[in-house]
Amino acid sequence: MSQHAFLNQIRISFGDCDPAGIVFYPNYYRWFDATCHAWFRTAGGHEALCRTLGAIGIGLVDSGAAFRSPASDGDLLDLALDVEEWRNKTVRLRYVGRIGERIAVEGFEIRALLMRDGNRLRAGEMTPLRAIMDGSY
Amino acid sequence: MSQHAFLNQIRISFGDCDPAGIVFYPNYYRWFDATCHAWFRTAGGHEALCRTLGAIGIGLVDSGAAFRSPASDGDLLDLALDVEEWRNKTVRLRYVGRIGERIAVEGFEIRALLMRDGNRLRAGEMTPLRAIMDGSY
Amino acid sequence: MSQHAFLNQIRISFGDCDPAGIVFYPNYYRWFDATCHAWFRTAGGHEALCRTLGAIGIGLVDSGAAFRSPASDGDLLDLALDVEEWRNKTVRLRYVGRIGERIAVEGFEIRALLMRDGNRLRAGEMTPLRAIMDGSY
Amino acid sequence: MSQHAFLNQIRISFGDCDPAGIVFYPNYYRWFDATCHAWFRTAGGHEALCRTLGAIGIGLVDSGAAFRSPASDGDLLDLALDVEEWRNKTVRLRYVGRIGERIAVEGFEIRALLMRDGNRLRAGEMTPLRAIMDGSY
Repeated sequence: MSQHAFLNQIRISFGDCDPAGIVFYPNYYRWFDATCHAWFRTAGGHEALCRTLGAIGIGLVDSGAAFRSPASDGDLLDLALDVEEWRNKTVRLRYVGRIGERIAVEGFEIRALLMRDGNRLRAGEMTPLRAIMDGSY
Repeated sequence: MSQHAFLNQIRISFGDCDPAGIVFYPNYYRWFDATCHAWFRTAGGHEALCRTLGAIGIGLVDSGAAFRSPASDGDLLDLALDVEEWRNKTVRLRYVGRIGERIAVEGFEIRALLMRDGNRLRAGEMTPLRAIMDGSY
Repeated sequence: MSQHAFLNQIRISFGDCDPAGIVFYPNYYRWFDATCHAWFRTAGGHEALCRTLGAIGIGLVDSGAAFRSPASDGDLLDLALDVEEWRNKTVRLRYVGRIGERIAVEGFEIRALLMRDGNRLRAGEMTPLRAIMDGSY
Repeated sequence: MSQHAFLNQIRISFGDCDPAGIVFYPNYYRWFDATCHAWFRTAGGHEALCRTLGAIGIGLVDSGAAFRSPASDGDLLDLALDVEEWRNKTVRLRYVGRIGERIAVEGFEIRALLMRDGNRLRAGEMTPLRAIMDGSY
């Protein structure tokens, strides 16, 4: 199936690139995060979701990215987000970024619901977020 | 006249914002720069322009921004670029960023053509860049 | 007098630079802001100051920077912050960044105390912040 | 053994943090990269190394980071870089970031020597870089 949870488009700009003329890699993670938040926006956005779920954030536990081919100023990055797996207390998101047909980057984020528990943070159950997001696209 | 040299749209994301929940202000300059490069792209892009002009960059001499009202995750920023003045060795660009009708940011960039002159940099004449950009929109 | 309100040192890194090999200019504003927050830290930090003052942030009203000479990967930027003027509802900060003896950047920030006023933000009186910061160095 | 290939210190600032008040995670990758370049600087820096090795960059192939505990404005991040493994055409670097005794982030980078090969990029042999870096600390 060709439908993604969310498909984002990023026009790569001069300032996203390093002295080698290619994307400075932390920017890919910035775009992963922005794509996730764009996906959240299809269900009201991060702030509204957190209010509904009693969470203080839908934050990162783990992340990774492999850089398959370089991208430069002017390239249009098609960045697809898919849910790889809903787990009890985390969700694993998969990202594939293409410039035309060519893959530039593949990565993932594992996110958890950060809940306040006295002075500490704990991870909340994922079921309510899943129910909301499954209904949203 | 309502036509701008370039009109960019930026979807403000969570990661663009600071602990006060509003845009971390250096990001506005990042978006000014990206909008300028999008304008350059209407004439082949920064790299091609530099090759044509024998320049190593169309770089910054001065810049400024006033923050009129706050912007947050999810806001859509309409960022308009206009050429305020072509001077002999610089060009002054004006930026106005709106969220709907409300102005969020107003700023400017003064850019020069950076030319290599032995081991030093010097500013080149603006006439050739002006001729190209005036023909491009 | 050679004493500054705060003197910060930033080691410029590869990733701070653009395809022309020089600092991508929004980073200078990032370093201005970080230097201001380092100055706030001499008086307990932004969060503690805001709590004391009943503010939600010590935020930006206006800003500017002129780029006097380029800086690159490995350069050590000495960035000096000085209070240019305390006004009723704003403070004007001045920044001068040097690489050795050479000036790389000069800039300013105008900041205000953002206070919540029902659903709106308003600027608070600067006197209490001035009293704290004048006592801190 | 307590000696690291490189130990960097980063003062986390307000602008590095997101609306949840904790570090926006792409910044950790920015700090990994800056720490790697600081390590390169112990052997002349990235540009000089590339000139010596005939490479156009010592770039990223893969990367990852797990976020063990949150960090905020004012925290001092001790970020240690270690070489995990020199391979034929890549090197795997390991990063551990601590706030005091507490681990905030653990991550890695796999880097390759990017060599120009006609119009394409290829990965160069790691032996010469290893010889230089092993001699440098």
